[in-house]
Amino acid sequence: MSEQPTTPTETQRASADYFTGVAWVTSLVKASDGTDCSVGEVTFEPGARNNWHSHPSGQILVVTMGTGLYQERGQPARVLRPGDAVSIALGVVHWHGATATSLFTHYAINPGASKGVVDWGAPVTDDEYRAAQP
Amino acid sequence: MSEQPTTPTETQRASADYFTGVAWVTSLVKASDGTDCSVGEVTFEPGARNNWHSHPSGQILVVTMGTGLYQERGQPARVLRPGDAVSIALGVVHWHGATATSLFTHYAINPGASKGVVDWGAPVTDDEYRAAQP
Repeated sequence: MSEQPTTPTETQRASADYFTGVAWVTSLVKASDGTDCSVGEVTFEPGARNNWHSHPSGQILVVTMGTGLYQERGQPARVLRPGDAVSIALGVVHWHGATATSLFTHYAINPGASKGVVDWGAPVTDDEYRAAQP
Repeated sequence: MSEQPTTPTETQRASADYFTGVAWVTSLVKASDGTDCSVGEVTFEPGARNNWHSHPSGQILVVTMGTGLYQERGQPARVLRPGDAVSIALGVVHWHGATATSLFTHYAINPGASKGVVDWGAPVTDDEYRAAQP
């Protein structure tokens, strides 16, 4: 069994509980019994970022548009551009989002989705965010 | 531990043992202990397609350019366009590739990569390929 090809539908605004600023999420692939892997596309408006968080089975980001930031707890932030990919091991606390001056879009690939997709922590403060700018 | 962001390097021509026509493969993410999921980008020139095959842990395709075809054994072919995604369950025998008149690019997402990525079968014959055209 495999799913039909799907075209993205119903872009949703990311929850203000877990994001600072405006971000949009489009589900491309829901986790199925066949792959247990979900895929979404996330666009952050300038200044937007998600809270500190980690993933029970890890996550892969593939950047498709704009300029973004990725930071692991205790590490300097890294700038992400189209074509960049990040493989995030399970349990690593981090955040990602747009720079203050650019839109930013990435695919978010969630293997092992049946174990849960994300464990949310605190918002990235304005000070943390400012310090992360390139 | 997580890997550094990576920019694609060393695009390789897909093996003539498993592809008909010219296709190009760029590795974006190698399977790591953290996610056990690899991601590649594949571009098929017009007329190119891979052999019949299946995946030990399934595979997800996300289309980014052009017009392509996806066919499961015994099913009609489906046309794929940018934004389409296909979730392919483990063991499902299928092929994918460009139409006869279009380039075609997709991401190939391989969860559970440590169980192996692909089991190859016979080439898609010219008759099978002609019958699949939209």
